Amino acid sequence: MRIAVLGTGAVGCTLAAALAASGHDVTVGTRDVSATMARSQPDRFGNPPFPAWAEDHDAIGVATFAEAADGAEVVVNATGGTASLDALAAAAGDGELADVIVVDVANALDFGSGWPPSLAIANTDSLGEQIQRRFPRARVVKSLNTMNAAVMVDPGSIAGGDHTVFVSGDDADAKATVGDLLREFGWTDIVDLGGIATARGVEMVLPLWLSLTSTLGGPAIQFKVVR
Amino acid sequence: MRIAVLGTGAVGCTLAAALAASGHDVTVGTRDVSATMARSQPDRFGNPPFPAWAEDHDAIGVATFAEAADGAEVVVNATGGTASLDALAAAAGDGELADVIVVDVANALDFGSGWPPSLAIANTDSLGEQIQRRFPRARVVKSLNTMNAAVMVDPGSIAGGDHTVFVSGDDADAKATVGDLLREFGWTDIVDLGGIATARGVEMVLPLWLSLTSTLGGPAIQFKVVR
Repeated sequence: MRIAVLGTGAVGCTLAAALAASGHDVTVGTRDVSATMARSQPDRFGNPPFPAWAEDHDAIGVATFAEAADGAEVVVNATGGTASLDALAAAAGDGELADVIVVDVANALDFGSGWPPSLAIANTDSLGEQIQRRFPRARVVKSLNTMNAAVMVDPGSIAGGDHTVFVSGDDADAKATVGDLLREFGWTDIVDLGGIATARGVEMVLPLWLSLTSTLGGPAIQFKVVR
Repeated sequence: MRIAVLGTGAVGCTLAAALAASGHDVTVGTRDVSATMARSQPDRFGNPPFPAWAEDHDAIGVATFAEAADGAEVVVNATGGTASLDALAAAAGDGELADVIVVDVANALDFGSGWPPSLAIANTDSLGEQIQRRFPRARVVKSLNTMNAAVMVDPGSIAGGDHTVFVSGDDADAKATVGDLLREFGWTDIVDLGGIATARGVEMVLPLWLSLTSTLGGPAIQFKVVR
């Protein structure tokens, strides 16, 4: 499939590389290509700057949000959650992302009071719903936001993959397509929570996930729904 | 130990029975003993009315909130989360619940917009924190709110008990005592999240838990933290 991954942080790069490795035609989208390609410092987590990553992944294009999304069947929102609506508006350009599957993996974290962050959207709304309302003709699927980027694309790296990923969305066909992409990554326990309003639940898991990464010593943790 | 369980719903009754079965001296607290003992209809989940339960558990006393809490080393808050501060104030009477371990298992659900409920407290505060602030001399431990009552006291009923319960609280000794009570129920994976502020995380899990009970067909589900 032709897939645009919006966002050049660790999540975007990790997803783009894994989707390309699965055989998809992947372009990474960024607001300002020149600025992105001029980065020379590691990010705050110590990941190499984007140009170094891009050099190692030369089959993956780098373009503006709009160029990356143009003609893409799937747009992955891997931008920071508080900037996602603007990024998607740039990606839509003059269009409406009509029929496009928007896979929203973002979390709208509010660091205004320091660590741990609270959520910029919570409880009676969610980023997933905001994206769906802003782009009513897009087919938004919330998924993968409940874990670290490395785990998203390699579930087998923890407990042999015996844990759970969630999908939320109003369009059954879009969720089925996202399910296929998740299975390519190795996911076996994919739980369909229902409509996009159920994105509230998975977004509100983040504070617990952050506590667990602190108390258990790192991001290599995951939730399994036992039943 | 001498334990007061505040609340006569399914959660309170289930916890009271299990704590008594573990050998503790348990009294159930309610706002109005006469009204509680006059109930004749099953609750909205089909559980028998409280007097029928009380007749089957005649070693467990029934008293007002204040009488139940008087002299108790542990007070379990199993009241509805939006009524919990009032119930605990009644339990405290002229005192401050000083040194008492308050095990808060409640969720402050807001049904004002129907189903699914939102949370009456979320994101930048939690019921656990509100209780600790209101009773600064109490030792509040949030736990068990992330699951169905039957699972709280019988973790082995799902997946042989291979799943996780969380504790949050500022007092290490109080968390250790609650850990002992949880082990009596059969819990083996008890994760200490940190201070009472981490109650935010476990309280915000409720919307996902509710979605899962809908999509997976019932409340016999649980979270396991894999790592």
